[in-house]
Amino acid sequence: MGEFDLIRRYFLPVAEQRGHPDLLLALGDDCAIQRVPADQDLVFSVDTQVEGVHFPRHYRPEYTAWRALAAAASDLAAMGATPVCFTLALTLPEADENWLEGFGRGLAQAASQFGLALAGGDTTRGPLTISIQVHGTVPRGQGLMRSGAQVNDLVTVSGTLGDAGAALDYLDAPTPGDDERALLSRYHHPLPRLELGQALRGVASACIDISDGLIADLGHILERSGVGATLNLERLPLSRPLRRCAGERAPQLALSSGDDYELCVTVSEALWAKLPEVIKSRLTVIGRIDGGEGVRFEDGVVLNSGPPGFNHFGSNS
Amino acid sequence: MGEFDLIRRYFLPVAEQRGHPDLLLALGDDCAIQRVPADQDLVFSVDTQVEGVHFPRHYRPEYTAWRALAAAASDLAAMGATPVCFTLALTLPEADENWLEGFGRGLAQAASQFGLALAGGDTTRGPLTISIQVHGTVPRGQGLMRSGAQVNDLVTVSGTLGDAGAALDYLDAPTPGDDERALLSRYHHPLPRLELGQALRGVASACIDISDGLIADLGHILERSGVGATLNLERLPLSRPLRRCAGERAPQLALSSGDDYELCVTVSEALWAKLPEVIKSRLTVIGRIDGGEGVRFEDGVVLNSGPPGFNHFGSNS
Repeated sequence: MGEFDLIRRYFLPVAEQRGHPDLLLALGDDCAIQRVPADQDLVFSVDTQVEGVHFPRHYRPEYTAWRALAAAASDLAAMGATPVCFTLALTLPEADENWLEGFGRGLAQAASQFGLALAGGDTTRGPLTISIQVHGTVPRGQGLMRSGAQVNDLVTVSGTLGDAGAALDYLDAPTPGDDERALLSRYHHPLPRLELGQALRGVASACIDISDGLIADLGHILERSGVGATLNLERLPLSRPLRRCAGERAPQLALSSGDDYELCVTVSEALWAKLPEVIKSRLTVIGRIDGGEGVRFEDGVVLNSGPPGFNHFGSNS
Repeated sequence: MGEFDLIRRYFLPVAEQRGHPDLLLALGDDCAIQRVPADQDLVFSVDTQVEGVHFPRHYRPEYTAWRALAAAASDLAAMGATPVCFTLALTLPEADENWLEGFGRGLAQAASQFGLALAGGDTTRGPLTISIQVHGTVPRGQGLMRSGAQVNDLVTVSGTLGDAGAALDYLDAPTPGDDERALLSRYHHPLPRLELGQALRGVASACIDISDGLIADLGHILERSGVGATLNLERLPLSRPLRRCAGERAPQLALSSGDDYELCVTVSEALWAKLPEVIKSRLTVIGRIDGGEGVRFEDGVVLNSGPPGFNHFGSNS
């Protein structure tokens, strides 16, 4: 089966299931065309997932597609962007129809869930590699960046941390219980915090999505902002399934495992006090920005270089 | 060496050598930010190159980078777009510093030549795969598409065809002569026809870049436009080095080999007559659009399905 047949059969339905009014031309020409409203800026990011590195070999194609699109869309969430469309660069060892059918189905589900229209792509033969570039928009000048954290800002995170990392122990479990299934669901079907990110425009002083672990990703905010942070380990938001399954390992997983795709957000105390409860309730205050360097903990432990970000199934580079 | 060190050392200089006034944020945050002028549309395309498929194993990293960026930029040329920026998703088996240095150098040269600023990227570990997404702009509604060819339009091509395809025979030649070196140069350093594409806004009824061979790519115009074409084989623009090196194979190479990244352009006779000589001189009329189906030749040969596009070092999908 040729490249064009492949694309038509499995990806055209994804493009057709939902377009976007700003996507003027998608698939089938040399380029796609997007109209960016005059009061908006284009926001974009590319994310690559390699079999055996970012997801296990023989991983279900539905999950592979969902996770790849979620990982990319999470970068839009971190900028406070509204999703518009994406491109898919898919390298495949063979045109396995079962795999393509499952991948197309997972991609369609994720695209619909995240509000992203398929704009274009490229299909090539080779070891399984998925590069997705997502496009979103923000009102001009309102994109959330890593560089704005100020001394005394609160450090907050969304949701609970460590769940997807803990799930790695259960990927091959024959009969996972309720707790294990809850953790696995976070690994297989991560939900980028798109609406929360948009709600934080004009509120967050800095924002990043947690894809490499809290310490590593908060570290990027600190480095770009030229500040430090002190965290209270007891405030880390840990789910009940994580506490029950991981026990004493839970805080370490929350600090250093990726794949949850939650947001780490800094916000001034003044703006925090004015935030609607519906947004506050989605964030947990875990510490405070200070004039130091790197991440410290209230009990005095120093993690200047920090534990490395979670390395998936191998090294990340 | 970690992902971030890699990016900093070898790709930050590429981003720093030239920015673009519309690229408001590049590298180092969750997303890049591009401002699209209010009278312009965003035009974008992604292109993937896999080692051993699209370029030879152990190919020089400078050439690898140049060819990858040229292949992607050629899609901007085909839309008549003005280049703005690009992202690089690079999957590498190992952080080989010599390779990275050469790749970064080739990338910087090509980016400068084509007028593309590095906006962002992702570096992962795995088999050598390069996905590049290019961004350009066109005045609103003026993008050149494949779908507008009309019966009686002239079929034209830029430059000469078949040179890069012929060069494959000489990739390992220890002491190539002048002709072989001329062909090799077209393979190693393809030049996307960006200025020509821009000059054809409002002139070309349809346009495509020739990356899979004239027959295959003209076939896309015909299919999308619902027309056929009759070509005059004797009018195919063949370079002297190609004629001398490939002899009787020259026309077949011009019809079916890719990698030249010339443009195939249809234009009405009325507009052709009005075209400035400086543009006309860059195009060769090779045939005419008609109400048939597929590509035919004046001597009566029918190529309904056409010879397959050139398959590089293996299958293209």
